[in-house]
Amino acid sequence: MIESRGRERLVVIGGDAAGMSAASQARRLKGPDELEIVAFERGGFSSYSACGIPYWVGGDVAERDHLVARTPEEHRARDIDLRMRTEVTEIDIARGRVRARDVGSGEESWTPYDKLVIATGARPLRPPLPGVDAPGVHGVQTLDDGQALLDSLDATEGRRAVVVGAGYIGVEMAEALIRRGYEVTVVNRGEEPMATLDPDMGRLVHEAMEGMGIGMVNRTEVTEVLVDDDSGRVRAVATADAEYPADVVVLGIGVRPETSLAKRAGLPLGGSGGLLTDLSMRVRGHENIWAGGDCVEVLDLVSGRERHIPLGTHANKHGQIIGTNAGGGYATFPGVVGTAVSKVCELEIARTGLREKDALRAGLRFETVTVESTSRARYYPDAAPMTVKMLAERRTGRLLGVQIVGREGAGKRVDIAAVALTAGMTVERMTTLDLGYAPPFSPVWDPVLVAARKAAGAVRRGGA
Amino acid sequence: MIESRGRERLVVIGGDAAGMSAASQARRLKGPDELEIVAFERGGFSSYSACGIPYWVGGDVAERDHLVARTPEEHRARDIDLRMRTEVTEIDIARGRVRARDVGSGEESWTPYDKLVIATGARPLRPPLPGVDAPGVHGVQTLDDGQALLDSLDATEGRRAVVVGAGYIGVEMAEALIRRGYEVTVVNRGEEPMATLDPDMGRLVHEAMEGMGIGMVNRTEVTEVLVDDDSGRVRAVATADAEYPADVVVLGIGVRPETSLAKRAGLPLGGSGGLLTDLSMRVRGHENIWAGGDCVEVLDLVSGRERHIPLGTHANKHGQIIGTNAGGGYATFPGVVGTAVSKVCELEIARTGLREKDALRAGLRFETVTVESTSRARYYPDAAPMTVKMLAERRTGRLLGVQIVGREGAGKRVDIAAVALTAGMTVERMTTLDLGYAPPFSPVWDPVLVAARKAAGAVRRGGA
Repeated sequence: MIESRGRERLVVIGGDAAGMSAASQARRLKGPDELEIVAFERGGFSSYSACGIPYWVGGDVAERDHLVARTPEEHRARDIDLRMRTEVTEIDIARGRVRARDVGSGEESWTPYDKLVIATGARPLRPPLPGVDAPGVHGVQTLDDGQALLDSLDATEGRRAVVVGAGYIGVEMAEALIRRGYEVTVVNRGEEPMATLDPDMGRLVHEAMEGMGIGMVNRTEVTEVLVDDDSGRVRAVATADAEYPADVVVLGIGVRPETSLAKRAGLPLGGSGGLLTDLSMRVRGHENIWAGGDCVEVLDLVSGRERHIPLGTHANKHGQIIGTNAGGGYATFPGVVGTAVSKVCELEIARTGLREKDALRAGLRFETVTVESTSRARYYPDAAPMTVKMLAERRTGRLLGVQIVGREGAGKRVDIAAVALTAGMTVERMTTLDLGYAPPFSPVWDPVLVAARKAAGAVRRGGA
Repeated sequence: MIESRGRERLVVIGGDAAGMSAASQARRLKGPDELEIVAFERGGFSSYSACGIPYWVGGDVAERDHLVARTPEEHRARDIDLRMRTEVTEIDIARGRVRARDVGSGEESWTPYDKLVIATGARPLRPPLPGVDAPGVHGVQTLDDGQALLDSLDATEGRRAVVVGAGYIGVEMAEALIRRGYEVTVVNRGEEPMATLDPDMGRLVHEAMEGMGIGMVNRTEVTEVLVDDDSGRVRAVATADAEYPADVVVLGIGVRPETSLAKRAGLPLGGSGGLLTDLSMRVRGHENIWAGGDCVEVLDLVSGRERHIPLGTHANKHGQIIGTNAGGGYATFPGVVGTAVSKVCELEIARTGLREKDALRAGLRFETVTVESTSRARYYPDAAPMTVKMLAERRTGRLLGVQIVGREGAGKRVDIAAVALTAGMTVERMTTLDLGYAPPFSPVWDPVLVAARKAAGAVRRGGA
């Protein structure tokens, strides 16, 4: 390849949300005569919605390709040299180059860069249990994983599924499998499902899941995956006390930043193993290297600490910001407040800010209130119950966090609190927020306002 | 009645949301041995949801009584001396007393007060048209109005309805009548329905209403209500150019503050005819008189001006704040940002902050953007289109207003903007808001974020 003089090369490691958003945004700002863009993806898909996998498995999304926002061909049509099934095996910072290996042929070659974007994502935790690699045991991190799970469901006639882990992926997969007609048991190490909530709110999820016919086993470690002697396929999941028969097992026990490359290159990692960046998403101490998406730690604006929050919405924002900066513009990512929404069948689950244990860990004293309200005016059809928990700092009354569990209309209400947290608002100020009201949308006091009133009262009465 | 020494008397004029919230909150803070509370209501119902009337008429709410949050008996059980069908006819500020007339008997008497709450609400505009008082022509301001309309619908076999006015009440009543099987025509003076939106957004409402089979006639004044010679009942609505046959006519052309009493008493009124209060909801210049609800003007925090915004949610907040202050506590109402949500059948309509003409009137220069997005990830079932319009101030980039028209999930998204407006946030800052994301709840870029990105771009490129 002959380089035109003065043309810079941007190399992107990882062809999913963060990496390809960065590539696309850089391309918008600089044409191919100014900037060459080379992107490496070790898998077979680019720019896809991993968050959509449970809905594809559950049948809500008919086809895998619907989850792909932009194919490799579409990226190439925009002058991005995206090399699929090509894994970067080394970053040589001193010489400004990466080594990549063709996954098929095993061939390796070096590619120099002027600017580098690391968007290597996260890898799912896979406990080192006996039997965990048996056929019928599946992760659901990538489209390839999703396809393998669907093939596995087709290959077995049994209808018993065990989901290990009760976080977002775990509960969403429980829903997916219920929708496919499976008998589902979720085995969870924690006190209650959804450890991203306080246990009292997780309890509500637990009860709702049981109401949907999902078996929920808490405070329990899986000790072994039991394999059928004849077929070699999974037959059950064992814990210290029990065995749960399983024709298929889904692992949803979380992910860790995929930063082995970055670590070997000596780049700075935080306490969760994610890359540390500055506000422009540059890797700290490196002028020409950016990182974003599931492989970085983000600043939690409420606690003031770095955290690892693998979420597609952050990855897309990071990519946008990195691409702007790498393309010669200016943009920053100020941080997150820890917002997340999910659902299990009709139950909506949302959180933002700090849980009680986060607040304690951050050295904060706080008041906690929980209120019951409804999604619509009580007299309006389909008004559904909603529980809102709110934490506010003592003395200052600053909002620290909100958790919501309810039916339709519960989940996105957390955005009210997300913006209020971003603004550093007090719960007292929140009591008079001018939120949308009409009987089909809200009680005359929105549930978030009800919680704010109670929290403000607690702060006023609160101790030192 | 023998007064216990030192016991104060709080008199409340108006037994609906603001008045009875104030009474109830004052009672929570002070028992009957400290504070006597007397409330006067000229109608037959207390503490009811006027906003719910269209849903009662439409059949979504089965019974009138479901709209009553607290009956007179319930208030009396809390030691509030609520006198129904008793109209206050004069406020004598110099002597600290009000004159009230029993609507039934016509008897009048004076009641002294130490503290006074004015919560006289709003009165519907009723154009002085020939025939407007004929049977079959109805307002829908009170429960009594709603009952009269329902009786009228029962009394006629015809199935043609004309709604005059295309604001919230107008479009909600159009939905109600469609649901009852009527052929509905809405006659509207303005350029498009929902004048609380800019006309380009109102146009979307117009198109959706037509799609629902609602006839929408814009830029048209009603000139006369035509009456059947035999029955004396309405038979049509006439405009300059046409006649619209009508078995029933609903007037929904807005309300004005009901402040005739206050005006006669010399209390300060603003440009919209509403009472002017300070931040503690005290009538300006009066130590012991508070006012709230539909009879006051509120501070618009975005434009810095007073406006009249009759909405139950404000009335309830005012009542709460007045009751706290009148009960010896402390609370303030900082103002509003102009949030409102509504729906016509499946169409959700929301707004907050300034429209283009409001911003111009306030002397602001601004950028305007409109984006099309979806309520959920595009690949997720029932992802519905959503249009978001956003205004941002030039130079500063401060958010000025948001309008949203779409299907399920559109309406309450406006709360994101309502909180951002309250916080004085810039659209640039909004681009990285940590909003809830999962495929069933939002695209990976929430529609509000998409609008913020586009608005931030416009501000960066914008002129002086």
